[in-house]
Amino acid sequence: MTSPSAAALQPEHIALAEALADEAGRVVRGYFRQPVTVDDKPDSSPVTIADREAEAAMRRLIAARFPEHGIFGEEHGQDRADAEFVWLLDPIDGTKSFISGVPLFGTLIALLHNGQPVLGIIDQPISRERWIGAAGQPSTLNGAPIRTRPCAAPETATLFSTTPDMFAGGDEPRFQRLRRAVKLTRYGADCYAYGLLAAGFLDCVAEANLKPYDWSALIPVIEGAGGIVTDWQGATLGLGSDGRVVACGDRRLHEQALRLLA
Amino acid sequence: MTSPSAAALQPEHIALAEALADEAGRVVRGYFRQPVTVDDKPDSSPVTIADREAEAAMRRLIAARFPEHGIFGEEHGQDRADAEFVWLLDPIDGTKSFISGVPLFGTLIALLHNGQPVLGIIDQPISRERWIGAAGQPSTLNGAPIRTRPCAAPETATLFSTTPDMFAGGDEPRFQRLRRAVKLTRYGADCYAYGLLAAGFLDCVAEANLKPYDWSALIPVIEGAGGIVTDWQGATLGLGSDGRVVACGDRRLHEQALRLLA
Repeated sequence: MTSPSAAALQPEHIALAEALADEAGRVVRGYFRQPVTVDDKPDSSPVTIADREAEAAMRRLIAARFPEHGIFGEEHGQDRADAEFVWLLDPIDGTKSFISGVPLFGTLIALLHNGQPVLGIIDQPISRERWIGAAGQPSTLNGAPIRTRPCAAPETATLFSTTPDMFAGGDEPRFQRLRRAVKLTRYGADCYAYGLLAAGFLDCVAEANLKPYDWSALIPVIEGAGGIVTDWQGATLGLGSDGRVVACGDRRLHEQALRLLA
Repeated sequence: MTSPSAAALQPEHIALAEALADEAGRVVRGYFRQPVTVDDKPDSSPVTIADREAEAAMRRLIAARFPEHGIFGEEHGQDRADAEFVWLLDPIDGTKSFISGVPLFGTLIALLHNGQPVLGIIDQPISRERWIGAAGQPSTLNGAPIRTRPCAAPETATLFSTTPDMFAGGDEPRFQRLRRAVKLTRYGADCYAYGLLAAGFLDCVAEANLKPYDWSALIPVIEGAGGIVTDWQGATLGLGSDGRVVACGDRRLHEQALRLLA
């Protein structure tokens, strides 16, 4: 069954999303491992000219092609957020990796139709890996279809998270309960971990304090590969979500991860 | 001043080390993101056919070229460990990354002369990045000379560590004291972090439970780029070291890191 939002997605949207990723990648590659000034944002997360220029370049392309579409970007805020189609942009998800010379950050591009993510791109500009998820279609990595792998239980699962330091207050013991239940835990991959989950190389990603431009692109990529992404209560992510995200390649693992994170 | 061990290092040693890295890379690339069986070693760390074959291939090359040299490898143990020259091999430092599809693991190759590391290679087979450190020579990344960056104090420093879960017992609060003092902490890079430190992209790496084949290759790379690597007491690393390692690009930062880790 094709949902109304999936039907609303047009090839022109996918073509534009790929052009946005190309352009952001061009900007970001030019600044990678170059001396760039790192500014601290009010939440004390870092931002650079690469983040700002890459997002500005993407916004210009959207405005030229679909001036009626809304845009919500990490660095330059919201325009027409109540439009039928809204683009969510995170020019560099993993700025801390970017400024440390680690090529695991990514550009995240999502298109929402009436609030539903119908298109998502995870693009790694240095390794030139591009995950695309489009509602109603199988997700791809560099053009090849991908599938999540089966993993029925935590004791055989590989878990990723950007850092254990992202879990504040009561989230920390909840995350640690999941961590102690899995076979293997690794940190440090930002959005790249969700891409690897979609491609069947790991089983679970659990994070907190994510913003809509952090998780919107992940949903079509992971769902189109057979996986599932929700909040820690198992609810669909939406603009009102609390920033807690758990993604699994296998629904059986997801059920148990929810129990451990409860 | 050239030390006796630096003088003992010959171009033929460097040529062989590069051939070892080439060969290990060829083996490892063939298994990356392919279905490989993951076995648990007695210490419950994972190992694959890629680790074993890459090390075996390197050992064959060493035996053919310098049959009198000793070898100490992570997967296949020690031969002639009391030889004047001993090769230390870690075919995949970061097997947990390797089996999760993350291209930040590395092949580590070190040559010891009378117990002193005189040559080190950190090789990343997927991104094709190769750090070489040779006693008495400037270290290089893909042939270009590299230098660590200045960083006088923790409050401006970027700290890396493979995982906070590597610190057992009393090491954990010592590491956390350092972590709280620095500007930025990231996890997950294994030996790649030391390479980035040598190339001036980050300032400090602190780890524990490392083996000689984990840290020997790092010493010539980091020292030849202007940095320093010691144990947590500030002592030179040796075969009797306790596995705690702290590397800094700037000696002023190293002094303060030692105080925080004390």
